[in-house]
Amino acid sequence: MVHPTSAQHEPGFAVWLTGMSGAGKSTLGDALARELRARGLRVEVLDGDEIREHLSQDLGFSKQDRDTQVQRIAYLTRLLVRNGVAVIVAAVSPYAEARARARESIDRFVEVHVDCSLDELVRRDVKGLYRRALAGEIEHFTGVSDPYEPPAAPEVRVDSATQSADESLAAILDAIKGRGYLAPTTERSD
Amino acid sequence: MVHPTSAQHEPGFAVWLTGMSGAGKSTLGDALARELRARGLRVEVLDGDEIREHLSQDLGFSKQDRDTQVQRIAYLTRLLVRNGVAVIVAAVSPYAEARARARESIDRFVEVHVDCSLDELVRRDVKGLYRRALAGEIEHFTGVSDPYEPPAAPEVRVDSATQSADESLAAILDAIKGRGYLAPTTERSD
Repeated sequence: MVHPTSAQHEPGFAVWLTGMSGAGKSTLGDALARELRARGLRVEVLDGDEIREHLSQDLGFSKQDRDTQVQRIAYLTRLLVRNGVAVIVAAVSPYAEARARARESIDRFVEVHVDCSLDELVRRDVKGLYRRALAGEIEHFTGVSDPYEPPAAPEVRVDSATQSADESLAAILDAIKGRGYLAPTTERSD
Repeated sequence: MVHPTSAQHEPGFAVWLTGMSGAGKSTLGDALARELRARGLRVEVLDGDEIREHLSQDLGFSKQDRDTQVQRIAYLTRLLVRNGVAVIVAAVSPYAEARARARESIDRFVEVHVDCSLDELVRRDVKGLYRRALAGEIEHFTGVSDPYEPPAAPEVRVDSATQSADESLAAILDAIKGRGYLAPTTERSD
């Protein structure tokens, strides 16, 4: 009787998009998901807000709660990645140490800093949150009343204030390909 | 450009083992995992205690907390199942309504009641918990100081007081095969 291990299956990988609210993590994550699905991969997008709803209704936005949130997302990501799924995380994840722990726990981890200047974020302010945060109405708002610790050495850094979404997407795909996570057989032929 | 949906991938399924502490859920879950891995499937065992450590350190054992725990396990299970993983849950999950909600949220769901008489559980008492619970030292202990609501219509019911582990395992495998969740190509030839 043979007991093959899970090693017989191709593992997935994680693309962890970190950045401030409104920087474009979800938009970029959704575009990346479409590209990877078009290549035949199994793909899950783990959105920070959605994870809060399903796994973390107990958590607020203190440093400890944010770290716990990142730890839960990392656990979920690890399980999916080791079962062959390409996992795209779109979560502010503002603290470097929590992201470092996530990286340690997950094989094949691509950290992407989705950067954007505060000026531009305030100018966009799609949800009106920056205006309220700058008026002192929101405590623990990353980049205003709470710190954002940018990654020192992310695999990819994109900037939605200065790059188009297509440029950013191409940079991320290059990083994934460069690490050999997109097998040649799953390359698109168009 | 083609955007195939995840439907092109074979979905997994969930085997949800519910029953009182010490009834044999984990033992049976591990044995089932070995059998399914031997057939080439991607398999994850989600153990209630392990999930508490990774996702639910905030939760205790009140009805509300137990229901939240089941909800989190169900969310994790749903993500894995839709990505082709055979997920084996081993968790007391004592409340019927919470299990029903888990069933609703997960495609291809096999509920297994791992039954065992209280007399036999007390006789075994591997962890010494029943003795303490019967002495009134543990509140919210399922089957003693907290209710266990047995499934009214589980796909499988096994009884570790009267059946061997092999018999129980065979019954579960039959149920999985009977529903067509084990493709013929993944049948073992020995």
